[in-house]
Amino acid sequence: MSQENSQSDYSVVGTTPLNPEAYNKVTGRAVYGADVQVPGLVWGEIIRSPHAHAIIKSIDASKALEIPGVLAFVTGDDLPEPKIDAYEWVNIPNLSKEVLAKGSVHYKGQPVAAIAATDRNTAIEAARRVKIDYDQMPSVTSLSAAVKRDAPLAMPGLTGDHLGEQVTGTNVVSISRNELGDPETGFESATFVIEREFDIAMVHQGYIELQNATARWRADGRLEIWSSAQGLFSIRGQIAGVLDMPESMVLVHSVEIGGGFGGKATAYLPPVVALLAKKTGRPVKIVTDRPSTFDATGPASGANVKIKMGVDDSGRIVAASATATHDVGGNPRVASGGSANNMFSPYDIPHLRVDGRDVVTNTPPTASYRAPAAPQGAFAVESVIDEICEAKGWDKLEFRLKNASHEGTRKVTGPIFARIGVEEVMAAAMESEHWRSPLPRRSDDGWLQGRGVAAGFWGNGGRESSVNLHLSPDGDVTMNTGSVDMGSVKLVVAMQAAEALQLPVERIRSNTVDTDSVGFTSVTGGSRTTFATGIAAIQAAENLLETMRTRTGELWGVEPDDVTYEGQRFGCVTDDSLGIEWDALAKHMLEGGDPVSAVGSANPPEAGNAGAVHIADVAVDPDTGKVQVLRYTAIQDVGKAINPQTAEGQIQGGAVQGIGWALNEEYVMGGDGAMQNRSFLDYRMPTALDLPFIEVQMVEVPTPFHPFGVRGIGEVSIVPALAAVRNAIHNATGVNLYQAPMRPGRVLEGMLAKRAKERVAVGAAD
Amino acid sequence: MSQENSQSDYSVVGTTPLNPEAYNKVTGRAVYGADVQVPGLVWGEIIRSPHAHAIIKSIDASKALEIPGVLAFVTGDDLPEPKIDAYEWVNIPNLSKEVLAKGSVHYKGQPVAAIAATDRNTAIEAARRVKIDYDQMPSVTSLSAAVKRDAPLAMPGLTGDHLGEQVTGTNVVSISRNELGDPETGFESATFVIEREFDIAMVHQGYIELQNATARWRADGRLEIWSSAQGLFSIRGQIAGVLDMPESMVLVHSVEIGGGFGGKATAYLPPVVALLAKKTGRPVKIVTDRPSTFDATGPASGANVKIKMGVDDSGRIVAASATATHDVGGNPRVASGGSANNMFSPYDIPHLRVDGRDVVTNTPPTASYRAPAAPQGAFAVESVIDEICEAKGWDKLEFRLKNASHEGTRKVTGPIFARIGVEEVMAAAMESEHWRSPLPRRSDDGWLQGRGVAAGFWGNGGRESSVNLHLSPDGDVTMNTGSVDMGSVKLVVAMQAAEALQLPVERIRSNTVDTDSVGFTSVTGGSRTTFATGIAAIQAAENLLETMRTRTGELWGVEPDDVTYEGQRFGCVTDDSLGIEWDALAKHMLEGGDPVSAVGSANPPEAGNAGAVHIADVAVDPDTGKVQVLRYTAIQDVGKAINPQTAEGQIQGGAVQGIGWALNEEYVMGGDGAMQNRSFLDYRMPTALDLPFIEVQMVEVPTPFHPFGVRGIGEVSIVPALAAVRNAIHNATGVNLYQAPMRPGRVLEGMLAKRAKERVAVGAAD
Repeated sequence: MSQENSQSDYSVVGTTPLNPEAYNKVTGRAVYGADVQVPGLVWGEIIRSPHAHAIIKSIDASKALEIPGVLAFVTGDDLPEPKIDAYEWVNIPNLSKEVLAKGSVHYKGQPVAAIAATDRNTAIEAARRVKIDYDQMPSVTSLSAAVKRDAPLAMPGLTGDHLGEQVTGTNVVSISRNELGDPETGFESATFVIEREFDIAMVHQGYIELQNATARWRADGRLEIWSSAQGLFSIRGQIAGVLDMPESMVLVHSVEIGGGFGGKATAYLPPVVALLAKKTGRPVKIVTDRPSTFDATGPASGANVKIKMGVDDSGRIVAASATATHDVGGNPRVASGGSANNMFSPYDIPHLRVDGRDVVTNTPPTASYRAPAAPQGAFAVESVIDEICEAKGWDKLEFRLKNASHEGTRKVTGPIFARIGVEEVMAAAMESEHWRSPLPRRSDDGWLQGRGVAAGFWGNGGRESSVNLHLSPDGDVTMNTGSVDMGSVKLVVAMQAAEALQLPVERIRSNTVDTDSVGFTSVTGGSRTTFATGIAAIQAAENLLETMRTRTGELWGVEPDDVTYEGQRFGCVTDDSLGIEWDALAKHMLEGGDPVSAVGSANPPEAGNAGAVHIADVAVDPDTGKVQVLRYTAIQDVGKAINPQTAEGQIQGGAVQGIGWALNEEYVMGGDGAMQNRSFLDYRMPTALDLPFIEVQMVEVPTPFHPFGVRGIGEVSIVPALAAVRNAIHNATGVNLYQAPMRPGRVLEGMLAKRAKERVAVGAAD
Repeated sequence: MSQENSQSDYSVVGTTPLNPEAYNKVTGRAVYGADVQVPGLVWGEIIRSPHAHAIIKSIDASKALEIPGVLAFVTGDDLPEPKIDAYEWVNIPNLSKEVLAKGSVHYKGQPVAAIAATDRNTAIEAARRVKIDYDQMPSVTSLSAAVKRDAPLAMPGLTGDHLGEQVTGTNVVSISRNELGDPETGFESATFVIEREFDIAMVHQGYIELQNATARWRADGRLEIWSSAQGLFSIRGQIAGVLDMPESMVLVHSVEIGGGFGGKATAYLPPVVALLAKKTGRPVKIVTDRPSTFDATGPASGANVKIKMGVDDSGRIVAASATATHDVGGNPRVASGGSANNMFSPYDIPHLRVDGRDVVTNTPPTASYRAPAAPQGAFAVESVIDEICEAKGWDKLEFRLKNASHEGTRKVTGPIFARIGVEEVMAAAMESEHWRSPLPRRSDDGWLQGRGVAAGFWGNGGRESSVNLHLSPDGDVTMNTGSVDMGSVKLVVAMQAAEALQLPVERIRSNTVDTDSVGFTSVTGGSRTTFATGIAAIQAAENLLETMRTRTGELWGVEPDDVTYEGQRFGCVTDDSLGIEWDALAKHMLEGGDPVSAVGSANPPEAGNAGAVHIADVAVDPDTGKVQVLRYTAIQDVGKAINPQTAEGQIQGGAVQGIGWALNEEYVMGGDGAMQNRSFLDYRMPTALDLPFIEVQMVEVPTPFHPFGVRGIGEVSIVPALAAVRNAIHNATGVNLYQAPMRPGRVLEGMLAKRAKERVAVGAAD
């Protein structure tokens, strides 16, 4: 690990304590949403649209309600008209339609009604007996079909924003443009220009834990929710928005989360269980199944990316442009920014134009997925750079380093980068053992072998975090955050508080608490949590120490400023004889001292931009096109790794998800808008058996925005993976692929076409 | 209501908003300890001693463990030797013996072992099959027997502290003395001296909700507890002490409490469920039954009080002395201070001596009960004052007022009273409609009618409280305290925060949270909570406003000191054009402002001493001795009533408990140490049918120790009741009683004796 700060500056930061939560999770004691038990609990079940696009003519639940044990039935008509447009970044009227449809449905699997019964099987059986009449409407179930002139309208009432113009009768939700310099002039100065087009499939976040929610109404009108969610306060606001109630009247409890990756930031189920709980007067729980989770919980957008890049003879990228068109599924949303605005960010390019387009189709509405939309854009840019280097005979990492963005580079959206580590990451990749190691062209089995490299970039979010610290009489400190525990953030935030308090991390009891018990805290997502909640924790720790110094000063009759703290001992600058240990001062509370608590909060604008380079070695079966990843290294600027072990885990996870997308994962959609592979048997995610150990090399270029230099790390780790694998396949086979996933059939087709072309060429030479 | 502050000084304080928790409680939605459900929960059952005093020879659980579904068995040998002597005021080694006995038992019902099984009935059946061999020891089961020379030793190993001397071979745990002036000289100056002796029965707190506890171990070694308890942090420390683990490793969750009155401040069950949960690897719950609750959960001490008072001809009390001997049951404890040190506090007496004695017997070990030990002492003092006034022909309230304690009066224990309202309470009683109204000597049914009056005093505790406040984006404030919600403190503390924040109380969401989620907070008890947690809440509110002013200053570019706040609007002293509403500033958090939280804490030495006078009208059936309370008024110095409705409820509750003790409640003990009336059928508590509406007259003499002048109110409300009823019975019948309860038999005996004496006197005159 290369680093600018010396390890010895810290006593807790940079160490790898075990995560105490890990024991609870591996022994099955952790309580997830589906485990929640409350007295009087009953079950709910959702009735979903079987059609991709239809008008709801009538709903008849009479046969369902006849079943003994069936307690209540709700439809979209039970939802109020939302009075707010958005909460944080979530459009509330649109969310309401994904909670329960009103009048029409726009994707298969859209919730139309829900039913509650005393037990789950009764609820499922009752749901089957609800009769809903639909008028089917013409549907459009692919991006390519949706952007055609005279395409059927996926959502007939939609008004699109096309570069500021309001447009009706379109499937295009949004067209946006960002420019830097003068792209036309830039391309004129290029000596080599390349244009390509890429298609990337819609994929699911693939978390293991299914969506779930439990609701209970208190008699005083407050709503309690337990739900697997990345943001307790975020879903609180969404629930309040959809149900049109004050957000403080909703109390969201903290439960463990079994994966989210951006896909658990939306309150799909909580308003439904809330309605059912209201009608039944009982607490109600719903747990989805895997097919519904695929159908109706926001996969990542599929995309088409058209790209053009120009270089001069010196090996500088002089101009680039791209149009990223994203399929946002059956609910309007703007996804393309994550792609368009980040795809060129690893590079310092004087002339840039990026266009984003978002298109509705009658397929599952999309949601965030790890660096939302960035992998799609990076797939295009990094593949094209590979082709440029191949064409010009340039070293692929030297070229990237020469063009790398750095402090002072202007982003296409306007801002100028502060200190970033893109160059350092590229340099580290060049010097890495992996990059320098030889790779035979063929394996012993005759498979074709190749190495690919690709870069990636992600801005990382900021937003609100709050932390409370409470001193126990035994000197331990309990810490409460509103940050849902993903990627060991509970531990990693506690480590930052421990560092600031000069205590071992084992003395910090770290909890994620409910929305009543800590200040506002945004999602665990956007790579923000270790960064922003960490800042809040450090601030809270400093406030706690300040209070302890004041109390000590009162005990001794000296000014707080004269009280020192070092090595868990308070001393006095004006009197060497004065001294009290941390633990003794804590215990003093039980003898007349005031209890000691402190709060900290933060709302930084960003969590330190981060760059990454991935190196992939693959073997390709020449007979089947199957690709095996042989070796994989992720090199990433982490700013400062609080816990190198958990940071490594985050980076490995991102790389693995990227490899899955690169090789196998995709929504296989039928022409009727029905997903054809709605189970983990048919939706192929990589397992440990499919993968080598993912090597991680962390580069530490501290960001100035965090006291310890922490950068967000969770998202950029997926960004380069699709292109790294794609470029490795090209290196192995000579085939350039323009679609993800690069499943065996596509690789084989590419190889067959290349062989056919070679045969023709050979034949022509004959 | 008389008061020194004008009502109009406040907008929330002094109003009577409905308690939002009331809805949950009356509709059965509130979650009490017995309602707690956690995945994998199994049940525990305790095996208790059938003997009052015995050596445990052997324990054989083999037959029990053969039953299918039985999971684990524990005895006192599974408890570690405690390494700390005390936590707060609780002796941990002694508590450990009430958790599970080791080697010997000292009262019937003492827990000896416990067993866990998959369901409750299996656990109960298994408990029956545990075979325990005992060697019975001589027992002593009454106070009078225990203090006899050569009495059997209830606890043979006991060392008593007799005025500083360590004494063995005694049942007397403690003898203590406090003096003021020179009692001997004082009594010499008296022109009338009276000596009397009183006996008061042991009674139970009589909470409706039975003791319960649930434990779950996290895999990382932390222990989670749900238990009906008055102090979450207090039982956390006790559990940690008994189990010899760091208190921060214990997490005590908040559940509703169905009454405590001092009797739920001790962790009897949590260590047992913790042991069983550890052995089974499953969460374990125990809920006691009513007989065990009587036997083994700390009733109030029975007492014998010997008292001597001297007055001069001017109607001044010139000297007084008393010996209060308390039966603390089968575990050493010092209870007599509450009696001895408070009984004379309503009066300014120059020469005083109070002796306290605490005696162990083989009866249920005692615990706190509402103004612990004070009703016993006041019963004696106020009865004797009644007799003095009768003998001298003095007005009973004029006499009390003339001798009332006031600011500057020295307590027998040393301290000098700050501003107190004893005089004001007595004056209010004299002027009350009740006191001035006529009462016929006989009812229409021929029952004898009489009026009694008595005073009482209680110091009220201070101790630690902590409060967190969190601002929601909708402008509401969530408030977390560690104070268990008894007597509507959740509401009444929220009202104080609301007053300080100038918000309606409905905008404060008040929660009692777990021990991880707020700073250290002592019990809800000692009449401290509205006072001390209130101070912490006001401090937190002031800190929150300070932060809001700072944020506003940052928005406007002005100094925080220049930001004003009034009427839910922030303004600027230097620029009239600047202004922002509370709600708008709160919402600003979602647009880039830091989240706003604040903490407050307090540890005051006392909660404002309080005095009370009760007036009772009774009717006595001349044939049976049954006493019916006709009218009852409680007049009390509340300092400042935050919520007059809930304050009134507290005072009514105290009076009712005192009436129950006065007339019916008592432990009827067999000679074998077995309680004979172990159910609410036989242990007679007053019901609504037995009582008139309890009239409450609040006098507001603000204490200087609280910003709004709040005094503790919960405890003193029980203190005068026994004597008020006793003096009314005397007034009705001419009979002076010296025992509580004054059950019909005793009253009838007194009347028969009086009639016999009158017949003798008439005969002598014949």
